[in-house]
Order: sequence, then C-alpha cells, then structure tokens
Amino acid sequence: MILLDGKELASKIKAEIAKEVAAMIDNGERAPHLVAVLVGEDPASQTYVASKEKNSHDVGITSSIYRYSETISEHELLEVVDFLNLDPDVDGFIVQLPLPKHIDEQKIIERISPEKDIDGFHPVNLGKMMLGLPCFLPATPMGIMTLLDRYRVETDGKHCVVLGRSHIVGTPISILLSRKASPGNCTVTLCHSFTHDIPKITREADILIVAMGKQHAVTDDMVKNGAVVIDVGVHRIPDESKKSGFRLTGDVDFDKVAGKCSYITPVPGGVGPMTIVSLLQNTLKARKKMYP
Amino acid sequence: MILLDGKELASKIKAEIAKEVAAMIDNGERAPHLVAVLVGEDPASQTYVASKEKNSHDVGITSSIYRYSETISEHELLEVVDFLNLDPDVDGFIVQLPLPKHIDEQKIIERISPEKDIDGFHPVNLGKMMLGLPCFLPATPMGIMTLLDRYRVETDGKHCVVLGRSHIVGTPISILLSRKASPGNCTVTLCHSFTHDIPKITREADILIVAMGKQHAVTDDMVKNGAVVIDVGVHRIPDESKKSGFRLTGDVDFDKVAGKCSYITPVPGGVGPMTIVSLLQNTLKARKKMYP
Repeated sequence: MILLDGKELASKIKAEIAKEVAAMIDNGERAPHLVAVLVGEDPASQTYVASKEKNSHDVGITSSIYRYSETISEHELLEVVDFLNLDPDVDGFIVQLPLPKHIDEQKIIERISPEKDIDGFHPVNLGKMMLGLPCFLPATPMGIMTLLDRYRVETDGKHCVVLGRSHIVGTPISILLSRKASPGNCTVTLCHSFTHDIPKITREADILIVAMGKQHAVTDDMVKNGAVVIDVGVHRIPDESKKSGFRLTGDVDFDKVAGKCSYITPVPGGVGPMTIVSLLQNTLKARKKMYP
Repeated sequence: MILLDGKELASKIKAEIAKEVAAMIDNGERAPHLVAVLVGEDPASQTYVASKEKNSHDVGITSSIYRYSETISEHELLEVVDFLNLDPDVDGFIVQLPLPKHIDEQKIIERISPEKDIDGFHPVNLGKMMLGLPCFLPATPMGIMTLLDRYRVETDGKHCVVLGRSHIVGTPISILLSRKASPGNCTVTLCHSFTHDIPKITREADILIVAMGKQHAVTDDMVKNGAVVIDVGVHRIPDESKKSGFRLTGDVDFDKVAGKCSYITPVPGGVGPMTIVSLLQNTLKARKKMYP
C-alpha cells in the first residue's frame, strides 16, 4: 500500500510555486496577488481564509483579505466584485462561501470575471472543464487530479466510482476522470443518495473517490483488493488526548480499508492540503494570464 | 414493450408550440424568430438546416437562413455573430457545424450570446446545466429527457449506462440524468472507447443510452430484461427496395433487442425528431426570454 501523501506533495508543489514567484520578482515583475472576500464572522470561513493567506505568504503570493460586515447588501457586494474584476493589481479572487441568506450566492459567483475566478465556480469555467478546454478547475477536484498525476496512478480504462454528486467535488471529478485526457479515460460511475446497493458498486471500483460527508461510511467490505481510494471527507472527532480536544477523520474507515488498497489518501494530510495548493496554482496561472 | 415514439411525441409537442405561437400572434406579439447561419455547401449541413426551417414553419416560428461562402473569414463570421447577438428581432440562432477549417469553431460558439444560444453549446450554458440552473440544453440530450419525462419512465435510483462521451450527447446526458431533478437521480455510468468489457456493464443497466456511432453495436446479449433502451445512432444502409436507395438504422440491433425491453426508441422516429423539436422549444423559450 502506498500512501497518497497530500501533505508532502503539497509542500513540494509549494516549493515549485515559490521558486517561480521568486524568479518573477527577480525579473522585476509583480508577485501574484490573491484577494479573499470575507463577509461576516463565520468561524469556519475565518479559518479557511486565514489558511489561504498563510499558504499564499509561504510561497510569496501577495494575499489580501477584504472584510465586510454581514449586513453588506447584495448590491454593495456586487460592486466589490466589479471593483476586483477591474483592478489590474488583483490576479484572482475568491468570495468565501457561505454568504448571508439575503445575498444570492450564484449571482455573486456569476459576476466574477472568469479569468479571475480562481475557485473555478463560474459556470463558464465548469462548462469549459466539461469540454476539456483550458480553464480554472475547482480546487478539490483539481487537487485529486494532481495527486493521481504526480503519483503516476494509472487511470486509462479503469473503473472509477465516485460517491457524492456535489457541485464542488463529486460531479466535477466524475467529469474530469471520464474525459479524454491524462489523468482521465476512466469508466466513471457517479453515485449519490438515490443509489441502490452502493457496496455492490464500490466493490467494482478500481478507483474509489469518496465525497459523501459521512464519517467512516466506507468500510473494508466495500473495497476491492488493490483499489485506489481517495477520501475527501473531513470530520472532527472529540479526542481528549489531543491539545485541540479533537482529531480529524474521513469518510473512509482508514485503519480497516488501507490494507486492501494499492494507494490511499490519509485524513488529515491527503486531499485537504492539495485543495489549498490548487488555489495557489490557480493564482499563479491567473498571474500568467494562462486563461483568456 | 412500449415504443418510445419520438415521431408521435414530436408532433404532439409541435402542436403545443404552434398553439402557443398562434396565441402570441393573436395577442399582437411578434412570432419567435430563429436564424441558422450556414457556411459553405456541405450537403449534410444543407439538409439539417432545411429541416430546421421546415419544422420552424410548421409551428409558425419565423426562420431565416444566413448563407455565407466557405471563404468567409473568421473575423467576418464573428461580426455576423455580433450582429445577430444585437438584433432585437432575432430570438435565437445557431451556427451550423462543421465550419471550414480556417475558422475556430469554439471561438465562434463562445461569441454567441448565451441568451440566444438555442443549441446550448456555449460553455456557460453547459456549466449551468451541470449546476442545475435554468439554461438552454443541447438539443439531443434535451430530446431524450423529454421522451423519458412525457412517457413517465421512472428514473429515480435507476442505474443508467451511457455509451459514448461526446460533448453534444453522451457527456451532457450523463450529467443530466445524475442531477437531483426529474427526470434524474440515476446512478450513471459513462462508458467510452477506453472502457473494458462494455457488455458486462450494459447488462447492469436499467436505462441504456447508446451514442457510440457504431451500427448495431448493441446486441440482445448486452441488454437486461426489462431495460429502457435509447438509441441515438443513425446510419444509412443501402436498400434497393427503398425509393431513396437506403434505409436508416441505429446503434442498437432493434429487431433482436426490442423484445427484452420495457421501453425502446426506434430508428428512425425515436431520438431524431425529438432533437429537432427541442430546438423549436428552445427558440420559444428564447422568445419568452426565459433564460437571462
């Protein structure tokens, strides 16, 4: 069994980005600049944005946080987006979700210029993803693709089963892995809450991607010997032995499943770090104006 | 076995559209107006465009064909698209593909205003389709969805196998049927040229959608008893008994497969007529400005 070590790979990619950014600066160019728009005081959102800022700084990417009260109107937030779209010193930006209920999230997302949409949530980026055209990919599926690519996991002709059809993970990764590309060319089965007999289907999977949001939903009897297992879930479990009072675990019962796998991601340290590094990669691509 | 009679259903829907268009005109409003842009003299393209024009006229939709020589430059064709985007008397338009090799098809498609993109090929419409947002759907997958809907074929929790991953049929129908919607909520497996042991997979299908472009590729041993089979293929077979000298057949060996099915589309008279009627439905939606 080989661990798909997202933490290690993310560090390696961060070093590559840092080197490229340093070369830009040596060359007299401006560093890439990422802006995170944060509305309100949601603790999880604060944590995510702080992590994005720290990771940006680690590699020399300039990071700014634009903070707004949760009373900001939709109109005012749209004006913020318009301003960022036009600001030549901002390469890419994200509007941290969720937004307060009086704001239409989809309207905000669609207002972001596709060429600055480093979250890859704009419909035009998702449509281009489907068509195999250059675009910004959503960070989590992109991180999974990078893991498969860098570990040289064979995907051609493999049966990939995806559990979960969310717009930000399950559906896009199912599309990416079925495309004529590398990684790709998988036969993909997309499962969700309406699927009958999920264990029967997962036992056929050469590659199993689990994004159900249900702790330890995948057990060893559901996994074929030699399978590649990618766990997107993150759950906090109370644990008095930890200073934080909790530990993290995934949608997969790692201790029981790992022994059957050819490759498996741990939680933490698997998909999570790859998600953050994908955002940095997208920011660098935005700086280089790779996607018109 | 119930025949999914696309010809009959298309006639019925055309009568519904005609009634609505007549009511518009009685109400003093302008009829919907569809424009087809035809470049060059490709015989198949001429036939398709003529058929779209005839079907439009049948229901009272105004139809125009803008014809250009195959020597038109990309820049000139982009200007035609810009003109149509701005013309308030044109509700929707299509640029008939394929285009001459010196013209970048994707560039032309992306220049079409999404709200006039009745072919549903613009990335923003495909992205919105993925997100389950209101949009123009590509005509063939839309026609299949309408067939399943009007014949009240149960789809929730069914295993749907799609053969073929093209951008205009296989991939979009796989996305549509996996969405949380009705029809939808299928567990979907998307197969293609890299898939191993296709017959093993198709034998698991409650709903089998065949868009491989290979004559009689699906035989009776590949189909489960009681399956729903949708055949997207169209092939011409020489037949001296026909006035035209040929007859049409599909990707499915209908004579052998039909007896095992709960529902099946014939070729001709199945998906084909539904594709054309979907374009008329999209034109009507464009006239009513249903998609901003």
